[in-house]
Amino acid sequence: PKHVGSGKVAGMGKPQVAAVLPAGGSGERMGVSTPKQFCTILGRPLISYTIQAFERVRWIKEIVVVVPAEKIDLMQSIIHKYGHKRVTLAEGGTARHRSILSGLKMLAQSESPVSKLWKPDVVIIHDAVRPFVEEDILLKVTAAANEHGAAGVVRPLISTVIASSEVGCLDYSLERAKHRASEMPQAFQFDAIFQAYLQSSDYDLDYGTECLQLALKYSSMPAKLVDGPPDLWKVTYSRDLYAAESLIKDGLSQYVCLITVMKEDVVQVGFLLHETLKTHGKQVKGISPSMCENVSQLQSLFKDKPCYNFICINTKESSFEDAEKMVDLLGSSSLPILYPVLLFSVHLVGPEGSSLYDKPQELEGIRDLSHKAMKKNIWVYGLVINLTKIEQQLQETVCRGAAIIMALIKDRCGTLAGQLLVA
Amino acid sequence: PKHVGSGKVAGMGKPQVAAVLPAGGSGERMGVSTPKQFCTILGRPLISYTIQAFERVRWIKEIVVVVPAEKIDLMQSIIHKYGHKRVTLAEGGTARHRSILSGLKMLAQSESPVSKLWKPDVVIIHDAVRPFVEEDILLKVTAAANEHGAAGVVRPLISTVIASSEVGCLDYSLERAKHRASEMPQAFQFDAIFQAYLQSSDYDLDYGTECLQLALKYSSMPAKLVDGPPDLWKVTYSRDLYAAESLIKDGLSQYVCLITVMKEDVVQVGFLLHETLKTHGKQVKGISPSMCENVSQLQSLFKDKPCYNFICINTKESSFEDAEKMVDLLGSSSLPILYPVLLFSVHLVGPEGSSLYDKPQELEGIRDLSHKAMKKNIWVYGLVINLTKIEQQLQETVCRGAAIIMALIKDRCGTLAGQLLVA
Ligand SMILES: [Mg+2]
Ligand SMILES: [Mg+2]
Repeated sequence: PKHVGSGKVAGMGKPQVAAVLPAGGSGERMGVSTPKQFCTILGRPLISYTIQAFERVRWIKEIVVVVPAEKIDLMQSIIHKYGHKRVTLAEGGTARHRSILSGLKMLAQSESPVSKLWKPDVVIIHDAVRPFVEEDILLKVTAAANEHGAAGVVRPLISTVIASSEVGCLDYSLERAKHRASEMPQAFQFDAIFQAYLQSSDYDLDYGTECLQLALKYSSMPAKLVDGPPDLWKVTYSRDLYAAESLIKDGLSQYVCLITVMKEDVVQVGFLLHETLKTHGKQVKGISPSMCENVSQLQSLFKDKPCYNFICINTKESSFEDAEKMVDLLGSSSLPILYPVLLFSVHLVGPEGSSLYDKPQELEGIRDLSHKAMKKNIWVYGLVINLTKIEQQLQETVCRGAAIIMALIKDRCGTLAGQLLVA
Repeated sequence: PKHVGSGKVAGMGKPQVAAVLPAGGSGERMGVSTPKQFCTILGRPLISYTIQAFERVRWIKEIVVVVPAEKIDLMQSIIHKYGHKRVTLAEGGTARHRSILSGLKMLAQSESPVSKLWKPDVVIIHDAVRPFVEEDILLKVTAAANEHGAAGVVRPLISTVIASSEVGCLDYSLERAKHRASEMPQAFQFDAIFQAYLQSSDYDLDYGTECLQLALKYSSMPAKLVDGPPDLWKVTYSRDLYAAESLIKDGLSQYVCLITVMKEDVVQVGFLLHETLKTHGKQVKGISPSMCENVSQLQSLFKDKPCYNFICINTKESSFEDAEKMVDLLGSSSLPILYPVLLFSVHLVGPEGSSLYDKPQELEGIRDLSHKAMKKNIWVYGLVINLTKIEQQLQETVCRGAAIIMALIKDRCGTLAGQLLVA
């Protein structure tokens, strides 16, 4: 996730840009009853991820989401729950192109005095089920549309495309080099695409495949084709949902924040943990508790790179006080709104045999804390690290601890929250 | 995984059938150094999954895997490690079609007296990176090839295919209804496809896109097109590897074997666990220890539906003896060769306060057992269930236990093996 300061789109003065996300798909291809844009990943509907991808881009001023009448309430609750700010809802038509037309009409109506919207210069059209769209490709298609009238992302063909004869046999294979798969996002000069849609025949609105094709047919705009990254693929089948989930979890597992105090044992374990996590490709930010005493400090620490994984090495051997403070702080911040936040409460157990297992009430501590934190979308895991004076042994223990932390960060499964694990 | 008893291919007498799997891809599209057919899922290379899919089909008598010279040793070790029986290795060419030609030559040479192979009537060509191929589609393309000379699987297009003009603008969109994506498997009458390859120009061997196209061009065989299932997609990008991993884990998490003895507590918990797992869609087989006292009993229990998840409710409250016996048995069977086997060692803790946590040596027990089992590809997890006389409470506890079991079965992450979890 990254933010962009400038409100400008490079090389085009400063056109006003809006987006339309048709979200009327019925999901029948996935063999599930929930349309795929409403399938959840880490508890949040896919469409919210796509909206978030657009909201990260500051120069996209308005996002019109088009859903069928029966999904308006659901969509409104999603917008509310995840704090989406720049979304306007429109009621969709029966077919994809009719939904896009509804979205365009809503933007066009902006000239009415009651509308809070305005008519954009350029409109981006994107699928609700392509959540990994990044700012750079949005910028490219927007700039190309501003210059050429229309633009769309293309990708090389993965499979050979063939034409079938009437008896179901191979007629011919298409030359791969000349053909491309047409993907999203696409962008258009608003007036031109709106006119194209208004002029479209009922047949084209019901069965037309491509916005680009409608723009060519009704507004004589041959779209500029822009090479896009592979991440723009459309979540179509169940396996695509799995892939999207893994990619989102990958993204969330990159950053780890490690909170340590200046105590000998803690610093030693903290240092080893830091090094081990770094060796495994994690970006680790080490901080002291004094650097995150209130929510605004916490928010400003993670302004540029939001972090959803925290490790807190407890100093009070027999209590969860430090972890509890962290839960309160994280729970008051906006961090857990979009993604679950993981908190590892690390307990150092002395070499003198003062085992946690002598005190079963310790276990209750982590379960109670986890139970409370879960309501705020924070998942707490206990991790016991046995201290030893033998450096090699301690290193191995910390390595195992890091492996456990990384596995839980990657799998992001809430069911194991509240467990006390042993490194 | 299913076996088919008949050696016949329906509707074609009894042609001899062999398969060629070209596995020379370099993986540059995935942005990783390991070619995707050698990327591992649950520790096993993708190509071994594809070979397994072919070995399940009894009427495919020989599988020729074609790899580059520098991968022969690696491939041989894979064949040995995972016990593949029907594979012959061939050295591949620089391009895909040259690899296929190498595979065909190896089968054609079968007429030489030193060859252990024979020349097939029909040859199936399939990608090493499409592991989810099922017997029914193999049967369909084989039967169609036997009748028509050539046959290949097609799928509807996901994206619109467009032609690009010379200046990189939209020229036209293809009509979706007339076009298909050509996928694998494909099958051919052996003599005809071998002749087609022998006659192919160097240009076609180096740059040709399609076996189907070569068959049409050089042997005038218009391939019969067969509609295939979506699972046949080609593992191309990292996200495809994620999707494949999730689908494989899904498959492995369907069946659970629950081992209980006739003791009151055990039966009560076992029954609740059974019911809960079934409610969540698992297929549960409940057995008694006497039904799996030796390897051949165990193998015959899971002949039709291999099961990779076992739950053993320990009766000796303070030991791992029952679980240990199960580890020995599973370790002597062939089950853990292809996939890791999960074993949950469930410990019932009495309501009289005889807590496991009074005995830290218990923890060592599960860790030691896990450590030993891990070497045999068996992952052991401890699970504590607190018994209570209050039925509602016990039910909730067992529900939490079932949730933990299902999460670990689904995520299949070895890092947490050896942990003692509390329901
Ligand atoms: Mg379109
Ligand atoms: Mg081909």
